[in-house]
Amino acid sequence: MKTQIAIIGAGPSGLLLGQLLHNAGIDTLILERQTPDYVLGRIRAGVLEQGMVELLRQAGVGQRMDAKGLVHGGFELALDGRRVHIDLHALTGGKTVMIYGQTEVTRDLMAARREAGAQTIYEAGNVVPHGMKTDEAFVTFEKDGETWRLDCDYIAGCDGFHGVARQSIPAESLKVFERVYPFGWLGILADTPPVHDELVYARHARGFALCSMRSATRTRYYLQVPASDQVEDWSDQRFWDELKSRLPTALAESLVTGPSIEKSIAPLRSFVVEPMQYGRMFLVGDAAHIVPPTGAKGLNLAASDVSTLFNILLKVYREGRVNLLEKYSEVCLRRVWKAERFSWWMTSMLHRFDDHDGFSQRISESELDYFVGSEAGRKTIAENYVGLPYEAIE
Amino acid sequence: MKTQIAIIGAGPSGLLLGQLLHNAGIDTLILERQTPDYVLGRIRAGVLEQGMVELLRQAGVGQRMDAKGLVHGGFELALDGRRVHIDLHALTGGKTVMIYGQTEVTRDLMAARREAGAQTIYEAGNVVPHGMKTDEAFVTFEKDGETWRLDCDYIAGCDGFHGVARQSIPAESLKVFERVYPFGWLGILADTPPVHDELVYARHARGFALCSMRSATRTRYYLQVPASDQVEDWSDQRFWDELKSRLPTALAESLVTGPSIEKSIAPLRSFVVEPMQYGRMFLVGDAAHIVPPTGAKGLNLAASDVSTLFNILLKVYREGRVNLLEKYSEVCLRRVWKAERFSWWMTSMLHRFDDHDGFSQRISESELDYFVGSEAGRKTIAENYVGLPYEAIE
Repeated sequence: MKTQIAIIGAGPSGLLLGQLLHNAGIDTLILERQTPDYVLGRIRAGVLEQGMVELLRQAGVGQRMDAKGLVHGGFELALDGRRVHIDLHALTGGKTVMIYGQTEVTRDLMAARREAGAQTIYEAGNVVPHGMKTDEAFVTFEKDGETWRLDCDYIAGCDGFHGVARQSIPAESLKVFERVYPFGWLGILADTPPVHDELVYARHARGFALCSMRSATRTRYYLQVPASDQVEDWSDQRFWDELKSRLPTALAESLVTGPSIEKSIAPLRSFVVEPMQYGRMFLVGDAAHIVPPTGAKGLNLAASDVSTLFNILLKVYREGRVNLLEKYSEVCLRRVWKAERFSWWMTSMLHRFDDHDGFSQRISESELDYFVGSEAGRKTIAENYVGLPYEAIE
Repeated sequence: MKTQIAIIGAGPSGLLLGQLLHNAGIDTLILERQTPDYVLGRIRAGVLEQGMVELLRQAGVGQRMDAKGLVHGGFELALDGRRVHIDLHALTGGKTVMIYGQTEVTRDLMAARREAGAQTIYEAGNVVPHGMKTDEAFVTFEKDGETWRLDCDYIAGCDGFHGVARQSIPAESLKVFERVYPFGWLGILADTPPVHDELVYARHARGFALCSMRSATRTRYYLQVPASDQVEDWSDQRFWDELKSRLPTALAESLVTGPSIEKSIAPLRSFVVEPMQYGRMFLVGDAAHIVPPTGAKGLNLAASDVSTLFNILLKVYREGRVNLLEKYSEVCLRRVWKAERFSWWMTSMLHRFDDHDGFSQRISESELDYFVGSEAGRKTIAENYVGLPYEAIE
């Protein structure tokens, strides 16, 4: 088998990269270890930056998002009961975010790829990249009991934090930066109306809480819980009671509860590898970096990597500018680190850290009080939340 | 002896409070442990916020400052060789800072107090406040071999971090917040022309450096050094060589060196006690809080405490609103903690921390890169540097 770009992973970043390249006449083949249903079953992010929204439209997959997604011009901070509105639209000169679940993005991209007749091989086992540092890169994998070889010009590693792409790069060629937080997020999905028409990020002495949503009838709520907690420790009733205790009274009183249709605990981690490339292999999204979800940057950061790689490959194939390939990692990392910084900052500001001394706690409270009390401070929050600009490839 | 306000400490905060109260017809007596020459011999801060400049003018002691001080509309950050201008004037809608040494402020205040005929007792030994929680507060002290008693309505503790005022409050009534940094600032004073017409704050792999000045012919330079270094370890030649190695080439090449006329190492510390009052005793400035000098907030924070206490006392004596006294600490602490936050942040951003892991270092680099690259970010730096507004006493 042969293709121009072998993409490992059919999550949103692999599919989006594939769609952009396909539309530009560059041939791709996606290898995915799981089934389509498994991929669609993963409940993940739901806040799309303006840059990602535009990229999805550019890829021709924005119709359903534009019809069903909710445009949010702001969000709310609830700081120990005090409610502060962050007016994204006013603070950024008109920018907004789109509430539209990662599952829906993936579904739209899958449909577009199917319609385009571009190939995705699901349930591809034992995927292994080869010859990344040579002029003859290829990927081997197993399907239906046979081993296959896929020759390609370049490989895009879009297979997430636990995927094979990063792990196939010699460890001594990568520098790892990591921070593990001493808590996780317990999330539930419920078919209930949202408690508020915008997202609410709550800092509270009992711990952080987030009121998010997927649509006007489906909600996603989160609680900070100790990293050692098990999902079995949390009945729906206990979840709703705890959530109410962390919200301002008016919100707690109007919260509509209901049975959870999904409930899980995710650890919080900051992680970056440098560089994000190795010869003909390019790492995209979670394969190269993880952010804690406070700030809603994970999926959006994958999209900006996709945009960077797509724009470089376009110039490589159309203008022969192969030297641009060397710049992929440094261009991505500039934006990645800023998003890592914002995600770390939002996490630090809003969560309860039992191991922080009194000085650190006061600094954290003062920092957030200053930033929400200053227009310039609110602008820094808003411009990061809607997403810093994508860097142009010149 | 009897006065309305007994002020402990004849440094700039005690003298400024005394001058403001004297001008308002409220009687003060200042007790100072040292001689006037000793007080004037302490080389300290040299950057006055706009709020402090206005307060000095309000106190009637702004003439020499306005004639001799240097108005700075910006400062420079040198980030690993890259030079970034922070245009305070443009970013804050016209605000500036005044370069005028603490020694000169003290000298002007001493002269004004002498002229006004208000009393300062220098070389007052064994100063002890009494009856702070009663209606009969008084201060005892020794002078010329005798013990004296000074009856008063209120006591202002303006005697610095090591002074008696805070130490005379029962420890269980104060909550201490503290951070000690693993390095100090080695400073020298020299009669050389400044290397640049604005202050330069330099982040460098070898450590932080600051190019400051006192006038067009007198400079003050600082180097981050390990906390364990002794001033004897640093010859003038070693200081200048090290300073040049941390500055951008163009600055290093134009640096004029000369013999030091003062050289000392100061530890870096963040420190706050809560509350800043105990009965009839009010802590002002360094007696209640210390900031690391990055950000030039120490003296300015003392001035805002002075302003708060003065405005409260004015309403107490003129309008009988004694209940306002209870608010002194909370009003001060809101601004104190924001200045502590900014000082901690500037220190964290610009110094080398050998104990930080790779993730923390990248976050710190990314944070500063984001803040200097974003107009909103630069505004947050500028508005803190020129000084957050004083809170009105209503």
